[in-house]
Amino acid sequence: MFTITELSTERINSIVTEALAFANGKTAKIEGEVFCSNLFFEDSTRTKTSFDIAERKLGLQVVPFDASNSSVNKGESLYDTVKTIESLGVNLVVIRDKKDRYFDELKNIKIPVINGGDGTGNHPSQCMLDLMTIYQEFGKFEGLKVGIVGDVKHSRVANSNAEALRKLGAKVYFSGPEQWFDEGALINGTYLNVDELIKEVDVLMLLRIQHERHDAKMSFSASEYHRKYGLTKERERAMKKEAIIMHPAPINRGVEIDTDLVECERSRVFKQMQNGVFARMAILKEALEKQGYTFK
Amino acid sequence: MFTITELSTERINSIVTEALAFANGKTAKIEGEVFCSNLFFEDSTRTKTSFDIAERKLGLQVVPFDASNSSVNKGESLYDTVKTIESLGVNLVVIRDKKDRYFDELKNIKIPVINGGDGTGNHPSQCMLDLMTIYQEFGKFEGLKVGIVGDVKHSRVANSNAEALRKLGAKVYFSGPEQWFDEGALINGTYLNVDELIKEVDVLMLLRIQHERHDAKMSFSASEYHRKYGLTKERERAMKKEAIIMHPAPINRGVEIDTDLVECERSRVFKQMQNGVFARMAILKEALEKQGYTFK
Amino acid sequence: MFTITELSTERINSIVTEALAFANGKTAKIEGEVFCSNLFFEDSTRTKTSFDIAERKLGLQVVPFDASNSSVNKGESLYDTVKTIESLGVNLVVIRDKKDRYFDELKNIKIPVINGGDGTGNHPSQCMLDLMTIYQEFGKFEGLKVGIVGDVKHSRVANSNAEALRKLGAKVYFSGPEQWFDEGALINGTYLNVDELIKEVDVLMLLRIQHERHDAKMSFSASEYHRKYGLTKERERAMKKEAIIMHPAPINRGVEIDTDLVECERSRVFKQMQNGVFARMAILKEALEKQGYTFK
Repeated sequence: MFTITELSTERINSIVTEALAFANGKTAKIEGEVFCSNLFFEDSTRTKTSFDIAERKLGLQVVPFDASNSSVNKGESLYDTVKTIESLGVNLVVIRDKKDRYFDELKNIKIPVINGGDGTGNHPSQCMLDLMTIYQEFGKFEGLKVGIVGDVKHSRVANSNAEALRKLGAKVYFSGPEQWFDEGALINGTYLNVDELIKEVDVLMLLRIQHERHDAKMSFSASEYHRKYGLTKERERAMKKEAIIMHPAPINRGVEIDTDLVECERSRVFKQMQNGVFARMAILKEALEKQGYTFK
Repeated sequence: MFTITELSTERINSIVTEALAFANGKTAKIEGEVFCSNLFFEDSTRTKTSFDIAERKLGLQVVPFDASNSSVNKGESLYDTVKTIESLGVNLVVIRDKKDRYFDELKNIKIPVINGGDGTGNHPSQCMLDLMTIYQEFGKFEGLKVGIVGDVKHSRVANSNAEALRKLGAKVYFSGPEQWFDEGALINGTYLNVDELIKEVDVLMLLRIQHERHDAKMSFSASEYHRKYGLTKERERAMKKEAIIMHPAPINRGVEIDTDLVECERSRVFKQMQNGVFARMAILKEALEKQGYTFK
Repeated sequence: MFTITELSTERINSIVTEALAFANGKTAKIEGEVFCSNLFFEDSTRTKTSFDIAERKLGLQVVPFDASNSSVNKGESLYDTVKTIESLGVNLVVIRDKKDRYFDELKNIKIPVINGGDGTGNHPSQCMLDLMTIYQEFGKFEGLKVGIVGDVKHSRVANSNAEALRKLGAKVYFSGPEQWFDEGALINGTYLNVDELIKEVDVLMLLRIQHERHDAKMSFSASEYHRKYGLTKERERAMKKEAIIMHPAPINRGVEIDTDLVECERSRVFKQMQNGVFARMAILKEALEKQGYTFK
């Protein structure tokens, strides 16, 4: 699974259903000795550990791979590295890489490659866990209003989510600094002023301010961002009664969201992390079953 | 378990007894699928690997966590990182951090947090293995004379040990460069000249010269330290017949101790490492049983 | 196992035979709880992961060891680090280190130490997998002509291979930039011009240009190396009908070998990696059986 674009709504529904089953206590253990490895060429606590635990819960053997000590440091291409891992007998890999669509150069790899995030493009497993979290709450996507606030254009998560939600019948709104929203950013949703957006939506997805991606463009301070576009206590009070707050984390406390709201009643921030393990179990299981592996 | 201060002598005795049982061949495997993770934000071979092996011996699944590649690099707080790990389904964490009393900010974490060392303050698992090693040798603490030589004030190990030993009825002496011993350092013991101390004690605990902590204060060379305060061959010959040598390691050979004495007959340096695994098994088992986990 | 020199041809044959049995589906699981650890003080994807998978296939518990975060950073000697790992209850270690014959200082270590490569000296597990790959192809060593092209003098792989192949009855030829071949490099083979060599040999072993080892000596560019000494498409067409191509990897595509030839019909590059796991299983099993461990 590389992108959300490739997924039909049927397949999304099937993965969400399986993920919710895992969340409700279903277990599955792979039959036989199956090896996997997580090739993360970019920092990540959440995604890597989440996949790691999902793999162990499915009974896979996780072979450690340390990108910083790998032969990539000797100039080896991604293809040669993955082909090596495949040759060594690893049966599935999860990859995160800084390069957009890194998977295009992996066409000759025969084992399943799960996309753990590529550049600013796709992050399908995060998308699935977000969808699962929304479905868990509302039991549907059709007709829901979802607001995404932040740097949509440079966010893997926002792009995948907006596309999938639109496909599933939700209405997507965006907000944040206007200079971040040129035409390219608005394919899957409509721009609203943040205060309007907050009153309107059932789901408020806050994005992380990615200082590391656009320092030059950041013409405002963290506290200025918070005041203008962040979820302040005042804005939270303006939300609809049943509306929920989501954030892919890591959170910049006091920037995207007031620190006291991170664990407030309508926050699903840590619930998303819990769900992440179940969503990834569903994604991994689907990929392995397609290869003929069975579970008990 | 965060500090030794919080432990009653009953609880210390109970953990030492269990650790000695493991040393004597007792095994225990946890029932069910239980995940743990070792969050080490400071370098360590010994402590991390020791916990890792202890966890595996107890049948826990160890989820790798690489502090240097974690979101802490993106400015995430320790609380948010640990809360994340907890949300992902990890059932126990061991943490080492540079910050004194880092655990004070983790009060809302529900899974057990085991202290693998904080700043210059506490290192209770090292303390337990030291106590276990002494008990293994002498069958008691009451009335023993224990000498600690080195930078007691900046040593996690020395602080924990001196406090616990005093509580258990041993008499504690300190030695080393006098400028290292202001009043704050002498709460749990008495300063003696190193040559007097060596003749007096049943247990000689040498501390590591921590070059990385007080370069400015080191007004003497390594060989000068060795000559003035180190365990030379001559000083070793002045020790009591049954007295033992301990060191938390890593050792600076030829500084705290003559290189030929590291594995001499009265040295328990590598025995301490062996015991470390058993002490940590006892600590982990106690913490997990308190949560309702059972072992077979 | 430290060097190939220490191995009799009987022992080489026995390991190759066992490795081929594993390649053909044989399995072996160690009895009891046995811990191992891979201490790699130099970068490596292939060798470390290959050992890791081999260990897991044999049923060993692999205890992670991160050289970059270890106490070696605090100046601890290799001996003290390995003695520590042994004291912690690890039953076997695999070591790679930059230092030639690092194992000479490990004489007092009682657990098996497997050499994962030392300096520019020895790399016996790579040698065994190369021998296994050749035997798999030709069913013999006696009378085979093997050409090794590249910086033989600075290559662990080339040194081990040339010595073992000569011992087993093969004839070894070398080629590459003439200034790399002084007398010391030619103990186990004869220098030939690369175009002559390529027509002659049954096995063509290409070595990696190790930019990191002799920058000063590299008086030619990558494309110049490729044209003068590399395996171009034209040279490949001049090879004998049944001849095979080997490379220890990581490959510099377009330098040692034309990129289109890396996965050509006579290339065994990725086959070598597959075989690496089986060769290492054989090496590990032999070492453990010598200690009295049994497999089922």
